[in-house]
Amino acid sequence: MIYFNCDYNEGAHEKIMERLMQTNMEQTEGYGCDAYCRQAGKLILEKCRTKDAAVHFLVGGTQTNATVIAAALRTHQGVLAAQTAHINAHETGAVEAGGHKVLVLPSGNGKLTAEQVEEYYQAHISDDSFEHIVQPKMVYISQPTELGTLYTLAELTALSSVCRKNGLYLFVDGARLGYGLTAADNDVTLPDLAGLSDVFYIGGTKVGALFGEAVVITHPALREDFRYVIKQHGGMLAKGRLLGIQFLTLFENDLYLEISRYANELAEQIREALSKKHVPLLVENRTNQIFPILPDEILARLGEKYCYTYQQRIDAGHSAVRFCTSWATKKSAVDELCGDLLEML
Amino acid sequence: MIYFNCDYNEGAHEKIMERLMQTNMEQTEGYGCDAYCRQAGKLILEKCRTKDAAVHFLVGGTQTNATVIAAALRTHQGVLAAQTAHINAHETGAVEAGGHKVLVLPSGNGKLTAEQVEEYYQAHISDDSFEHIVQPKMVYISQPTELGTLYTLAELTALSSVCRKNGLYLFVDGARLGYGLTAADNDVTLPDLAGLSDVFYIGGTKVGALFGEAVVITHPALREDFRYVIKQHGGMLAKGRLLGIQFLTLFENDLYLEISRYANELAEQIREALSKKHVPLLVENRTNQIFPILPDEILARLGEKYCYTYQQRIDAGHSAVRFCTSWATKKSAVDELCGDLLEML
Amino acid sequence: MIYFNCDYNEGAHEKIMERLMQTNMEQTEGYGCDAYCRQAGKLILEKCRTKDAAVHFLVGGTQTNATVIAAALRTHQGVLAAQTAHINAHETGAVEAGGHKVLVLPSGNGKLTAEQVEEYYQAHISDDSFEHIVQPKMVYISQPTELGTLYTLAELTALSSVCRKNGLYLFVDGARLGYGLTAADNDVTLPDLAGLSDVFYIGGTKVGALFGEAVVITHPALREDFRYVIKQHGGMLAKGRLLGIQFLTLFENDLYLEISRYANELAEQIREALSKKHVPLLVENRTNQIFPILPDEILARLGEKYCYTYQQRIDAGHSAVRFCTSWATKKSAVDELCGDLLEML
Amino acid sequence: MIYFNCDYNEGAHEKIMERLMQTNMEQTEGYGCDAYCRQAGKLILEKCRTKDAAVHFLVGGTQTNATVIAAALRTHQGVLAAQTAHINAHETGAVEAGGHKVLVLPSGNGKLTAEQVEEYYQAHISDDSFEHIVQPKMVYISQPTELGTLYTLAELTALSSVCRKNGLYLFVDGARLGYGLTAADNDVTLPDLAGLSDVFYIGGTKVGALFGEAVVITHPALREDFRYVIKQHGGMLAKGRLLGIQFLTLFENDLYLEISRYANELAEQIREALSKKHVPLLVENRTNQIFPILPDEILARLGEKYCYTYQQRIDAGHSAVRFCTSWATKKSAVDELCGDLLEML
Repeated sequence: MIYFNCDYNEGAHEKIMERLMQTNMEQTEGYGCDAYCRQAGKLILEKCRTKDAAVHFLVGGTQTNATVIAAALRTHQGVLAAQTAHINAHETGAVEAGGHKVLVLPSGNGKLTAEQVEEYYQAHISDDSFEHIVQPKMVYISQPTELGTLYTLAELTALSSVCRKNGLYLFVDGARLGYGLTAADNDVTLPDLAGLSDVFYIGGTKVGALFGEAVVITHPALREDFRYVIKQHGGMLAKGRLLGIQFLTLFENDLYLEISRYANELAEQIREALSKKHVPLLVENRTNQIFPILPDEILARLGEKYCYTYQQRIDAGHSAVRFCTSWATKKSAVDELCGDLLEML
Repeated sequence: MIYFNCDYNEGAHEKIMERLMQTNMEQTEGYGCDAYCRQAGKLILEKCRTKDAAVHFLVGGTQTNATVIAAALRTHQGVLAAQTAHINAHETGAVEAGGHKVLVLPSGNGKLTAEQVEEYYQAHISDDSFEHIVQPKMVYISQPTELGTLYTLAELTALSSVCRKNGLYLFVDGARLGYGLTAADNDVTLPDLAGLSDVFYIGGTKVGALFGEAVVITHPALREDFRYVIKQHGGMLAKGRLLGIQFLTLFENDLYLEISRYANELAEQIREALSKKHVPLLVENRTNQIFPILPDEILARLGEKYCYTYQQRIDAGHSAVRFCTSWATKKSAVDELCGDLLEML
Repeated sequence: MIYFNCDYNEGAHEKIMERLMQTNMEQTEGYGCDAYCRQAGKLILEKCRTKDAAVHFLVGGTQTNATVIAAALRTHQGVLAAQTAHINAHETGAVEAGGHKVLVLPSGNGKLTAEQVEEYYQAHISDDSFEHIVQPKMVYISQPTELGTLYTLAELTALSSVCRKNGLYLFVDGARLGYGLTAADNDVTLPDLAGLSDVFYIGGTKVGALFGEAVVITHPALREDFRYVIKQHGGMLAKGRLLGIQFLTLFENDLYLEISRYANELAEQIREALSKKHVPLLVENRTNQIFPILPDEILARLGEKYCYTYQQRIDAGHSAVRFCTSWATKKSAVDELCGDLLEML
Repeated sequence: MIYFNCDYNEGAHEKIMERLMQTNMEQTEGYGCDAYCRQAGKLILEKCRTKDAAVHFLVGGTQTNATVIAAALRTHQGVLAAQTAHINAHETGAVEAGGHKVLVLPSGNGKLTAEQVEEYYQAHISDDSFEHIVQPKMVYISQPTELGTLYTLAELTALSSVCRKNGLYLFVDGARLGYGLTAADNDVTLPDLAGLSDVFYIGGTKVGALFGEAVVITHPALREDFRYVIKQHGGMLAKGRLLGIQFLTLFENDLYLEISRYANELAEQIREALSKKHVPLLVENRTNQIFPILPDEILARLGEKYCYTYQQRIDAGHSAVRFCTSWATKKSAVDELCGDLLEML
């Protein structure tokens, strides 16, 4: 079975594994207070071209989302997010378990618009019963989104403006950020993210690391006491240096971008094969997730050899599914998949 | 100014006030352990024609909803509710503050259908990632709904069946229950509610009492330790007998139904006036809330004399608003309103 | 049976009942936005000799404590309190249900000292693992305490200084404040409380009202959005004017102080009777709660006629119990109790 | 600097690192649904000599404690623990953030007794105000405790009996379990733990793994839906196989016990050196943590070369500190420390 169902089927990039082996018996401080974490944080801030920010390393995405949101919001405040947002759909209510409502906005492509946010905010403050309604205080977006789509710099700038005007925090979930930064149609950089958001994170789990998310906090209010909140949310890894070492390796020589670009290229190859056969996509994107709409009988045949994710039923005979590439996907596997697609379709 | 904006503009029914005066200097146990609460609970169970249930008295609706839901759900479980549900829209995230997600289903008329619940439940348990999604465990409905509509006995029976088949608790918010029980088109009785739901409450605040909601719990699992949860949620009134006295008065000689019927009749009078002038309604119902769609200039003129609730914009020149009657509404006020409506329209 | 077990066995002072009757059919805005609440709030601020504060009315003590603490603290912060504090011992974990740890300090007489708070704070910030420990951010005290004792002005001033020096909020639970303000040995006034604390409340439930607590917030950060938090915690009474009317009545002509003084005088009479018979007290105080240590056989005999609260076992043959007087206690009942005590002992 | 301050200064045992390297590019299911996790779980159950239990792998201790407790308790329930318990003292209120109070019992040596639990439980259920107090529902203990002490089989059996009699869950935190199982004076086995507790975990982070805790759940009520709760608490590692691989390696050929025994032997060597110089210990134990009470000037000199943890001040000139050994401690480092101790003292 060849796995295309997600981007975390393998371990870590070989350079990370080597570095973990080399440093294995070193003695360091625990809980992220070691030199590797400091170096990795410094390097990430350099890539973001800012000094006025804090970097923290957490283990996973759900944990990171719950921690950032809990650190930011007072009890009566909620976070605006798209219907498809990971915090709304796939974290078993971790945000609500922390006491906060996810204020859901409709979205067909996984993205929110500045207009939606502005409209929601204005409706809230002009409602006679506004105190009976959760106060919107944060906007959560993903880059790329759960549907693989990307905010353009213009869209992100507009969202940022609306947020700042209205006193809302802008939080960007970058669990797959590498695949966004290196997409063919991307125009958003790390310095853009650092400048336009209040907090964002750079995903490691899905982009070459064994695990790990690097949170970059630019807003001063969110930086205060953040480590307490990490600890409370179970995100303070005892051997924190494991995170520092991995992110240091990923950001030295831009390995992070290099391996992300590789995955995107393989995704493009699959999209080209699909395109040749005029297979429609559930959503257009240029990152590492591909959402073809295929006949059910083709899917059944593909399923004997390839593992993919079922997305949704389209009609009686067709379904949308997801294929993912990653830093670890073998070129040969993609060639084989493309060959089979061209043959079967 | 004449208030039609809600059903809690006045104090309590005169019989309640008299009873509170008469009993004022009696000494009783606190926290709902007094004889009045026991008597009131007993009387309510008689009206529900069951002995196998517990009755508890709380102060207000938001508190009651938060308490019942907190008592019922484990940390990973959520409650299904209509988009318009009070717990979703007007309780400042009290359910989420207790750690639980409100799982929102679309609804045009304030009601959920058995089919919606079944479909959501089946989708959940058949999802490969079901453990990454909040587990549906309770269904919350209001009778009447926030839009004044009513579940028929057939609809309620179908919902109850789906819930029992799938191990979901059915919770009925009866903040305005009196106005439902006595509506012209109602076929649901207290024994029906006790038999078909797992927990429901009989609203006092909006139906003749100074405050108070009587929770009837039939499901054994929800009865266990319920008073701890009331106390934790700030709902255990020190002078609990105030609640017992009020509900005892409301349920002796069916005062509760009598005053509810009165309010419904006044509402019907308003609906007739609107009907004569072919004023469309946002939603059809026969309870104490009326949702006419009126021209903005008429609304402006009405607003000089009458207080109503703004509901939503319909088009450039029309809005839907809400007029409420209650046990306390004066017949003369309704006559005056109807006269003005007939004249202005 | 004559009840001395607590100070909430009866209804409300007759002037309150009269006012509720008189105003019963008036139509007002809901949720505390009515003229009575505004007037009552204004009057309370006058008594506190400040304009720079907000007043909010809630229904009960547990609810008020949970609401204030939830409004004040971030997720990783906790509240320092005495072992005997109501929030620690008798609110079914309402503070923890809101996500915050009660940081318990030992206390023999129900009071905290400035030194204890300073020591705890210093220990926290100098601990290498401080981020692994809940951050102290608020100090909760009761005036009078749960043991009927009072902070002197000097003690309160010292606590306030330590709190301000270290950025801790000082929160005073005044559920029985009337009995403190009028105690023979009291030197703390409402203006003192307003000046020295960041938030405090004036209890109505135990001092003449049917229910109700008036929260006075002086710290600007705690004022922001406070009504959202009230609503979320189920404390926003629909017919909010009931609270305004009651507090207006209590604070006009200083009824609140008058009826509190009356209760204290009755308590002094009981203490004198006990003193004549050399009955030791668990704790010395001059407010409305009396904690005699009595032989178990005497307690058994008293228990046939009087209801008191069992406090704790002292030795094989003696127990400490609590007798309370209140605004509603009859002089004749106290005379009878004193007569019986003098005779039995 | 030689680190004796904790037992998580290094990476993982070389056999684990090798296995991670070997399996690095294998493709597996995510979230702990892979064959390694299944095998590791099966092996652990064999070691526990039971089939009737579930095994789950989480990343860290705070996360595991929060997850187990959240899965077990209803909103009004709390967990009994020693003053020194990790959940009380060093997890930034993670249990309270989940809504539950830690009910603290005094303890000099880190252990609770069956008598303490029984007494607390009886006091709760016989209190007139029991519903105003958090309901005790779980007992949390650590084996070894935070002070390195061990429950004997008799003590554990007594605790288990009290818990079962009273319907309390018994939860054993085994973050350092290996060091307990192999201590010179231990008589508690894995099958004992599985038989006597309702849920316990086997710590990997401090015993040879990069990270990871293996939770063994024997009580059926705690098993239900446990993976939802893991996910909600951010403990469901995407590349879950990392946990399975590590625990499989640790439990094949009893590596876990072998490396734990090694650490204990080094600790015994340090204790012998201290004993020769009649250095008193804060608490007696035979596991990998040593708590000598030493003169401050000696500690200052030791601190130039060795890193240890400051525990508490004993008197003006002496402090208790903690030295830890681990699976990774070098024999030469211990020899050097012992030499220096013998020379300095």
